[in-house]
Amino acid sequence: MEHGIQVLRSHPHKPSSILEQCLKACFDCEAACTACADACLHEKPDMLGMLVKCIDLDLDCADICGTTGRLVARAGGADPAVTRAQLQACIASCRACEAECRKHADMHEHCKHCAEACHACHQACEKAMHGRQSA
Amino acid sequence: MEHGIQVLRSHPHKPSSILEQCLKACFDCEAACTACADACLHEKPDMLGMLVKCIDLDLDCADICGTTGRLVARAGGADPAVTRAQLQACIASCRACEAECRKHADMHEHCKHCAEACHACHQACEKAMHGRQSA
Amino acid sequence: MEHGIQVLRSHPHKPSSILEQCLKACFDCEAACTACADACLHEKPDMLGMLVKCIDLDLDCADICGTTGRLVARAGGADPAVTRAQLQACIASCRACEAECRKHADMHEHCKHCAEACHACHQACEKAMHGRQSA
Amino acid sequence: MEHGIQVLRSHPHKPSSILEQCLKACFDCEAACTACADACLHEKPDMLGMLVKCIDLDLDCADICGTTGRLVARAGGADPAVTRAQLQACIASCRACEAECRKHADMHEHCKHCAEACHACHQACEKAMHGRQSA
Repeated sequence: MEHGIQVLRSHPHKPSSILEQCLKACFDCEAACTACADACLHEKPDMLGMLVKCIDLDLDCADICGTTGRLVARAGGADPAVTRAQLQACIASCRACEAECRKHADMHEHCKHCAEACHACHQACEKAMHGRQSA
Repeated sequence: MEHGIQVLRSHPHKPSSILEQCLKACFDCEAACTACADACLHEKPDMLGMLVKCIDLDLDCADICGTTGRLVARAGGADPAVTRAQLQACIASCRACEAECRKHADMHEHCKHCAEACHACHQACEKAMHGRQSA
Repeated sequence: MEHGIQVLRSHPHKPSSILEQCLKACFDCEAACTACADACLHEKPDMLGMLVKCIDLDLDCADICGTTGRLVARAGGADPAVTRAQLQACIASCRACEAECRKHADMHEHCKHCAEACHACHQACEKAMHGRQSA
Repeated sequence: MEHGIQVLRSHPHKPSSILEQCLKACFDCEAACTACADACLHEKPDMLGMLVKCIDLDLDCADICGTTGRLVARAGGADPAVTRAQLQACIASCRACEAECRKHADMHEHCKHCAEACHACHQACEKAMHGRQSA
């Protein structure tokens, strides 16, 4: 994400480093959730049944993180209330996806790493929410 | 959106018609906002300055509506709290984008139609929120 | 997709009706593929194994159709060669997804409707390719 | 992108490191192009006119890179021909966007960094194309 961060740093509005961390965490989580859904889908067929909810949450979380990352990348900040509502959705989604992935973390390494991506992402979104609110 | 609706109707979970309307409104609004941002960008250069906020809100709203439409299309309903939080973000975004587009509706026909798309979308999302909550 | 089409019609570049049809077909196919993947995932667990490839192709096709629809909605036409390459990817994806969905069409109605969405989309993209090339 | 890469590494299909690099480059380029479009939009109004094509290409490129990154993250590899067609679209888009951003690189630092992101991305996609073709 090095070039993305450099572009953000040269944005006329000079966004804070809190937003840089949030941008990185959102796109990392989108990639992690997309790959985890696919990894689950390609586990042995007799395991698939217990991974359906995980795949479902992964797919929702990938879309939500991708959209949140794009809003954060638009450092011009069209409307702070919209950004906050999207960060809120991202926090809810990452928490739900982390909780489900943790259940499978002992059995499936991809779920362990995906849970970590979700954890890092909701933490970064919380910081971005509060950084923005107090600004 | 006719095929998308037919797929939704044959989903094992039999989603309600409220979700069909929401699906249609979200993808229509994603298309409208994407096209409106591009139309604004290609207006005469001396008008561009006053359309920056409109383009910004259009781009955020297109991403948010696309993601919301996908969550609604996943009628399996991974997590109702996540869907509700995303619907909430979509309502906030469509309201903000509608308000901005209305300011330019007399001058730019694309903004008028985009405002209508946003209005229809936040109305449909409100119904989907309450339909789900009372279910 | 009525508002999206109206915005496109009021774009300063006056896009052709071929692009309107393509826009509608792309977003319809994105919705159909997203809903079909989720419907497959929620079929009975003992059927899941034979639907893995279908889910995989649906997910790729939903992303590709969504991106193609957005490029078409940007009627300003940043670069015709880029649009053509993306239309080509969309045609390849819709053909592959249609072929796979047809295999399950007798058993799963959602796959039948998804195959129709994919068919309509690659037809509309072919027309948009040739409409653009001859223009 | 560290968690995303770790999930990819624990995917049952054991994707090659070429795909890891491609995944990183695609999501980095999506973020860079999204932030560059917004940075261009928030430059002084009298500069906006000459940045319209850059914004347009940035927006297309962000969508294309995001979709390509998701296909690569789905290491299960639904259909190699679809992935190749999407990589081809990504190469075309990143080349066009790099060429345009280079024109503004002396004046706008965000365009310089965005051009570098595009360059790294089409290079990584070329490698992924050939890595896959020879496999």
